Amino acid sequence: MPGNTFGTLLTLTTFGESHGPAIGGVVDGCPPGIALSEADIQPYLDKRRPGQSKYTTQRQEADRVRILSGVFEGVTTGTPIGLLIENTDQRSKDYGDIKDTFRPGHADFTYFTKYGLRDYRGGGRASARETAVRVAGGAVARKILEKLVGKRLKIQGAMVQMGLHAIDRRRWKWKTIDANPFFCPDAIAAEDWARELDTVRKSGSSIGGVVEVIASGVPAGLGEPVFDRMDADVAKALMSIPAVKGVEIGAGFAAAQLCGEDNADEIRIGTRGKPEFLSNNAGGTLGGITTGQDLVARIAVKPTSSILTPRRSITTTGQETDVSTKGRHDPCVAIRAVPVAEAMLALTLADHLLRFRAQCG
Amino acid sequence: MPGNTFGTLLTLTTFGESHGPAIGGVVDGCPPGIALSEADIQPYLDKRRPGQSKYTTQRQEADRVRILSGVFEGVTTGTPIGLLIENTDQRSKDYGDIKDTFRPGHADFTYFTKYGLRDYRGGGRASARETAVRVAGGAVARKILEKLVGKRLKIQGAMVQMGLHAIDRRRWKWKTIDANPFFCPDAIAAEDWARELDTVRKSGSSIGGVVEVIASGVPAGLGEPVFDRMDADVAKALMSIPAVKGVEIGAGFAAAQLCGEDNADEIRIGTRGKPEFLSNNAGGTLGGITTGQDLVARIAVKPTSSILTPRRSITTTGQETDVSTKGRHDPCVAIRAVPVAEAMLALTLADHLLRFRAQCG
Amino acid sequence: MPGNTFGTLLTLTTFGESHGPAIGGVVDGCPPGIALSEADIQPYLDKRRPGQSKYTTQRQEADRVRILSGVFEGVTTGTPIGLLIENTDQRSKDYGDIKDTFRPGHADFTYFTKYGLRDYRGGGRASARETAVRVAGGAVARKILEKLVGKRLKIQGAMVQMGLHAIDRRRWKWKTIDANPFFCPDAIAAEDWARELDTVRKSGSSIGGVVEVIASGVPAGLGEPVFDRMDADVAKALMSIPAVKGVEIGAGFAAAQLCGEDNADEIRIGTRGKPEFLSNNAGGTLGGITTGQDLVARIAVKPTSSILTPRRSITTTGQETDVSTKGRHDPCVAIRAVPVAEAMLALTLADHLLRFRAQCG
Amino acid sequence: MPGNTFGTLLTLTTFGESHGPAIGGVVDGCPPGIALSEADIQPYLDKRRPGQSKYTTQRQEADRVRILSGVFEGVTTGTPIGLLIENTDQRSKDYGDIKDTFRPGHADFTYFTKYGLRDYRGGGRASARETAVRVAGGAVARKILEKLVGKRLKIQGAMVQMGLHAIDRRRWKWKTIDANPFFCPDAIAAEDWARELDTVRKSGSSIGGVVEVIASGVPAGLGEPVFDRMDADVAKALMSIPAVKGVEIGAGFAAAQLCGEDNADEIRIGTRGKPEFLSNNAGGTLGGITTGQDLVARIAVKPTSSILTPRRSITTTGQETDVSTKGRHDPCVAIRAVPVAEAMLALTLADHLLRFRAQCG
Repeated sequence: MPGNTFGTLLTLTTFGESHGPAIGGVVDGCPPGIALSEADIQPYLDKRRPGQSKYTTQRQEADRVRILSGVFEGVTTGTPIGLLIENTDQRSKDYGDIKDTFRPGHADFTYFTKYGLRDYRGGGRASARETAVRVAGGAVARKILEKLVGKRLKIQGAMVQMGLHAIDRRRWKWKTIDANPFFCPDAIAAEDWARELDTVRKSGSSIGGVVEVIASGVPAGLGEPVFDRMDADVAKALMSIPAVKGVEIGAGFAAAQLCGEDNADEIRIGTRGKPEFLSNNAGGTLGGITTGQDLVARIAVKPTSSILTPRRSITTTGQETDVSTKGRHDPCVAIRAVPVAEAMLALTLADHLLRFRAQCG
Repeated sequence: MPGNTFGTLLTLTTFGESHGPAIGGVVDGCPPGIALSEADIQPYLDKRRPGQSKYTTQRQEADRVRILSGVFEGVTTGTPIGLLIENTDQRSKDYGDIKDTFRPGHADFTYFTKYGLRDYRGGGRASARETAVRVAGGAVARKILEKLVGKRLKIQGAMVQMGLHAIDRRRWKWKTIDANPFFCPDAIAAEDWARELDTVRKSGSSIGGVVEVIASGVPAGLGEPVFDRMDADVAKALMSIPAVKGVEIGAGFAAAQLCGEDNADEIRIGTRGKPEFLSNNAGGTLGGITTGQDLVARIAVKPTSSILTPRRSITTTGQETDVSTKGRHDPCVAIRAVPVAEAMLALTLADHLLRFRAQCG
Repeated sequence: MPGNTFGTLLTLTTFGESHGPAIGGVVDGCPPGIALSEADIQPYLDKRRPGQSKYTTQRQEADRVRILSGVFEGVTTGTPIGLLIENTDQRSKDYGDIKDTFRPGHADFTYFTKYGLRDYRGGGRASARETAVRVAGGAVARKILEKLVGKRLKIQGAMVQMGLHAIDRRRWKWKTIDANPFFCPDAIAAEDWARELDTVRKSGSSIGGVVEVIASGVPAGLGEPVFDRMDADVAKALMSIPAVKGVEIGAGFAAAQLCGEDNADEIRIGTRGKPEFLSNNAGGTLGGITTGQDLVARIAVKPTSSILTPRRSITTTGQETDVSTKGRHDPCVAIRAVPVAEAMLALTLADHLLRFRAQCG
Repeated sequence: MPGNTFGTLLTLTTFGESHGPAIGGVVDGCPPGIALSEADIQPYLDKRRPGQSKYTTQRQEADRVRILSGVFEGVTTGTPIGLLIENTDQRSKDYGDIKDTFRPGHADFTYFTKYGLRDYRGGGRASARETAVRVAGGAVARKILEKLVGKRLKIQGAMVQMGLHAIDRRRWKWKTIDANPFFCPDAIAAEDWARELDTVRKSGSSIGGVVEVIASGVPAGLGEPVFDRMDADVAKALMSIPAVKGVEIGAGFAAAQLCGEDNADEIRIGTRGKPEFLSNNAGGTLGGITTGQDLVARIAVKPTSSILTPRRSITTTGQETDVSTKGRHDPCVAIRAVPVAEAMLALTLADHLLRFRAQCG
């Protein structure tokens, strides 16, 4: 398969450029009989949508999704689900001046080198705009999971670090993530971040961050060793999000510092008579198969490459130049990575649930 | 596809359990006309092979690979390459006592939960033994890369941290990795590690580590957005290695702490008249496509779960028990992850090279 | 992959129901730098479009295709090409009466049995309407082939038999196929067919047919043994077209009657100093790999299942009933299978051309 | 995927050349808990094995299969099943004289053209020898079907035509196929064929044939529109068998001659209160999804290309020459295609059964 399809049994194939007429995609393999309408998808798109606070790009996109197929009388039919989102606020003129320049940190150089040409308007295909379709696909995946597993399966993301400032995990409250524009679960950190990001934003700079996504209520047994392990597929799913530079599961890089005694997640029989792990360094996966514990992943998101301070670069014809970006951009793109990471995790889990049913169902 | 095939155009399909008669695999999609014999593969297997120092498991496996097909008169024919490695040192008796017990940190619980039964001998399919076939496949991938790209493309791995002890990067010498049993590029760190690991080993404990793999001389343009980005596929490839809990590319998690100005890899025209990046925070990939710079990835490897100190666990019938592992095991499994990580990177690059030729060749 | 994607490296993913808002698809893996616009696709859609003669259904669909992505300044960019065709003439009311009935010969029974529900409007996903997107995808494939192979590669289809009436191959003229509404290469047969089909049409009946598709100028070497042989993939491509019940390559079923001496396509050195086959019983493929001769395939198309004469059937609730179809339908659906078969052959060849480049390029 | 893997969820990846050390393969995706041993596979290999009558090649191959993995204590574990068959009777010397010659009708020319070199010993990868692994894989698929569907699902093949001589279907008896060396269900036709084939064999000639494979007891609902329809995947599966030139389902090419009234398979409620089709022109599939009726496919097999009478050809260096084959060969290769066709149908059905469970299970 070429690179614009994600998944094995539940697939999302996406298309669309930042400044073309529309972006969209096809979800294939969806089980029949699942209630689905645009209203199930729109809230997640709204969560990702730009222009909602001063901390995200001021581009205004309605991001209204249309379901073009695969749903009849309110339920999925088992046929492919066509999804379409029209682009409305395409200020291409903002990008004319970068037509012949490779913006450092962006994909301009690599797209041009690979394909010999590029749609330079707003980053074209490499724009984070394509992630809107991932979010729409993720919403469909959530419906599948809800139907096949139940409401106990929850997928939630939070930003846990902005630049050098990490949250205090003892203050973690899920409700807090809706009370600030950062999806931050620590109310005090959120205030610090607001001050910090104001400075960053006003100076035309940008800053990185760390996002954590957690799926709870995941059935044990999902994941296909030895290559399509759950952790491997989660790693791919999350690393495929623009600007992500690292993925870790459970204890992650901290596990490298542990001895075997401290790392082992011991098992007892819980109060309900079922196996219970006493810790979760594994992050919910052993041997690439889910344990039933929370599936926990963290991603490192680099700072937005579009900044005001000029950076040295070259043109497509090999001339040296300086690049400074004045367009509309996110000072901390990690914020909007939260709903995208949730969507990718939902797609991965739903895909593996179907794979499980096929072989072991 | 089920989970035991890696790659899209150049595929490695593997089979085999730790204590079955043999392990092996099939490399399909290999271009024709490439010189290949067992002698091209064996050195990499020898590098991974256990029992070579006191710091790895004392299991003795010859790991002799046989090429069963796909090579005629010394060169590949374009047909699938069958690879076979007989298991010789299968002390199954060592494992009888864990037949009904889930060893903490191992895949015993998840395999049993997923499949309803498991080959308990030495971890069965979940044993790190399967990685020998990855190494064999990686050796074939290296030959492909050498033929199609040239000797300038090099893939090398090193261990850069053991437990809390990281190397000093200023002392990095590639030659040093062959001069100690840890693939450590820092001679002084290697001495410290030897002392440290002696203690760990004698106490029947284990310790984690970090491995870095670098591919230099990689052509620009490899990687298939938006899902099969080079970084996403490298993340999957490396996270699929047993015991790996995190993957980062370039600056990785450190990028989350940077501002846009510091993270940007500026570009100039180099002395040879070609584009030259002034830093490599991107780790050789932008927008999921290689830049031509070094492709740099790091993985976190957890400590071996098999340790002497008893850990609490349960049996397959739900009885609580304690588990202590007395078999032959690696005190620091990160060491042997080095050649495996190299192999997975080689397979990923060769696969993407063929994908590039298909679309843009 | 679920079932709505065709191809390996050049893929067409389609969606859409007969009476939904739109049908469409995504072509992924298209090489960059190929001139492409709606004007390259529309003529093929027009060829397949219903309502053009009294011998095809009177449904009126403009079948206007929009390219939503993957093309910039008139050329492909290497990113996925989104295609959209709005449905305009959706007389759903025609279908209300078959809502609860399984029409014999149609997919009503199987869709309902498989998915537990079905979009009954006009056959839903099982309608031949979905083939419009195949034709659009095939047009893109033709552009790829033209760019990579040249204009010498031609893909043409013809109807060679209607019911019991086969053409006389000695009268075959390619120009004739545009001079009658049957894509018939034999002018005299076309006249007979017109009379015959008038009778069929007026009686509310239908009739089957045989379509032949030929690709000439195909490079030798395409096809991936042992499973993705060119003949195997052509067979799948053509058998996936609605109403097709048989596929043969070259001499096809006649080969079963031949002895080895008569079947062998002998080889000589031609006048241009290149290998030349003296016959083409193989139909352009040996061992699943193209020989460079014409690739010749024929398909059997069953008569349209929608007929006026009542046929015995049952309802979704298990009541016996009789079904008679009064809606708009094709008396000989084989006619419109011609452009669809051409499209599927184009997609198959373009996909295999990219696969060839990957491994042997 | 490269071309040596068949299937989507249940895959068979094969390797091996006619005169290499071994042939083999990997079955991946097999559900756990299925009783399996070499004894389940060997009878099917024996059925395909050459040298069993004077009507098949006199090459003597034991075709002993070894299961190398994926089975523990007599049942499948859900991990990949490695299969190995050593080549024992490799009279390579027989083939030295065709080293530089393209045998008409064989894949010599195309393999050489595609790959630039070829393993000329006995046809190398293009030899029908590779089908032994398909038969082994098919035996595993049968066990899966038996476990998941039950013994009512039966897959049986028969030869129904040899050269110009077709069976009389009124004399069809399944028991008869074991009573003659042709898998012929018509005892009288079998006698005719014996005489006919004696003549063919003694004259060093060969003859084509038609094979029919029938799966009865297939659950309704299998098949994945619009591209991975059951009929499309069966067509691919069967056309991928060496020497097959045509595939038809149900009425097949005869359907092209029918009117809608005659072709329609009417439906009634049967004596057991379940839907019952009154005929089976559809061959067990409507809209690409199984109906529950017998799945019926026929394949045309061309005559063996290896014959004694010299045929004109050329050498690898472009010299004209004549080719006459004196090695051990099948006078009617269609005979041995019977167990191979059964195996491919079994693999296709088992794969689609798992796909059904995934989406609709």
